[in-house]
Amino acid sequence: MYQVVLLRHGESVWNKENRFTGWTDVPLSDEGVKEAHRAGNLLSGEGYTFDIAYTSTLKRAIKTLWIVLEEMDLMWLPVYRSWRLNERHYGALQGYNKAEMAAERGEEQVNLWRRSYDVPPPELDEDDPRYPGLDPRYSSLDKEDVPKSECLKDTVDRFLPYWNETIVPAIKSGQKVIVVAHGNSLRALVKYLDGISDEDIVGLNIPTGIPLVYELDEDMKPIFHYYLGDAQAVERAQKVVADQGKAN
Amino acid sequence: MYQVVLLRHGESVWNKENRFTGWTDVPLSDEGVKEAHRAGNLLSGEGYTFDIAYTSTLKRAIKTLWIVLEEMDLMWLPVYRSWRLNERHYGALQGYNKAEMAAERGEEQVNLWRRSYDVPPPELDEDDPRYPGLDPRYSSLDKEDVPKSECLKDTVDRFLPYWNETIVPAIKSGQKVIVVAHGNSLRALVKYLDGISDEDIVGLNIPTGIPLVYELDEDMKPIFHYYLGDAQAVERAQKVVADQGKAN
Repeated sequence: MYQVVLLRHGESVWNKENRFTGWTDVPLSDEGVKEAHRAGNLLSGEGYTFDIAYTSTLKRAIKTLWIVLEEMDLMWLPVYRSWRLNERHYGALQGYNKAEMAAERGEEQVNLWRRSYDVPPPELDEDDPRYPGLDPRYSSLDKEDVPKSECLKDTVDRFLPYWNETIVPAIKSGQKVIVVAHGNSLRALVKYLDGISDEDIVGLNIPTGIPLVYELDEDMKPIFHYYLGDAQAVERAQKVVADQGKAN
Repeated sequence: MYQVVLLRHGESVWNKENRFTGWTDVPLSDEGVKEAHRAGNLLSGEGYTFDIAYTSTLKRAIKTLWIVLEEMDLMWLPVYRSWRLNERHYGALQGYNKAEMAAERGEEQVNLWRRSYDVPPPELDEDDPRYPGLDPRYSSLDKEDVPKSECLKDTVDRFLPYWNETIVPAIKSGQKVIVVAHGNSLRALVKYLDGISDEDIVGLNIPTGIPLVYELDEDMKPIFHYYLGDAQAVERAQKVVADQGKAN
């Protein structure tokens, strides 16, 4: 039996301001830093350890991982960063407040962009400063891989090659793996692992800063999964995520 | 012309306590954290940027690098950790106070262990808890690579393959490289780069937390090198290192 631990980064300053973040590289909030410390303590306290870590190219995930590694005294672990673990790219919505956008475009339209499986938000232009093709960290990507906007299906499509070709071989080689990523990149993975339908994935929320453990069989099919820590805290955190798209 | 930036980690809690550290995985002191922030600010302020970073498997170097990357807004950089960049292994001296050891064994003997090129300190036994073969982070090493003690020559011998086979190809490919390592692993590199004799290397001290820039020709031979920042601060920091082996 194999295991992998998934962790959504702690609250960012834009989670807090309720803005569409996507690939915008915003830092953790003070609360997000605390969440990361709690996650690290929880993992240590429950006797977890790791051999290798994967994260995105975005600082809110990287910092969460750093704090967890420091709490667990595992700073020496090899860490691999990939854009394939990044948050879903929110296209031209990036930077806008979710509730304002709901008031302006309607809750239904915003919920469709946020939660539908295959409707991407409006695209960025290539000369928009938010376009990732202008960021040196993505300069080695093939142009067709650089997103201008993504629906969750797009995120699944670019996450899965990394899962199958990089993370799964590490797990199968017996290494203990932690993946620190984002709300939607982790939803993409969980959808794939648990075979969740395009419709049902809409209702699935992954809370920030709470380790999610998957036990996998030798074909990397989930046997079961569970969040670490207090069940009520998990439920509250999931509700916070679900409520963000509602107009104030 | 090529460039590489070398950085010795900030002061650790054992630098502060004047103890032989070697591969003991001690954290930065508060002053060491400040030094790392200053180094990051200095590099940013002088317009440096990087594409890739190399460090050791020891947290005082890793944390220094993390702080520098955070100050420079380069947390997304690929980071590679290798035991080959670790501090010189101080064998059975690890943990002992340098001045006490000087009082007990004589300044001359301690200076010989600290500064001679080819006299290693007494070896650790394999059942000593300080023996790196018992540490999971070194479990993938061939047993003959796991040190029980090292003279500087040993450190040169295990650093250079990583320099030549991993770091040099990155530099030659046009990537801007930072190496965050330790007093003696950086002395090992500098000895090799500048062709310093076995005798003269004894007098060379590398201060903590001050970026050291090497400009290299296409054969990776140094054209010139310089420390960033205030020259007097560099001189003071070098003197601190040189004085640590004297009996109080």
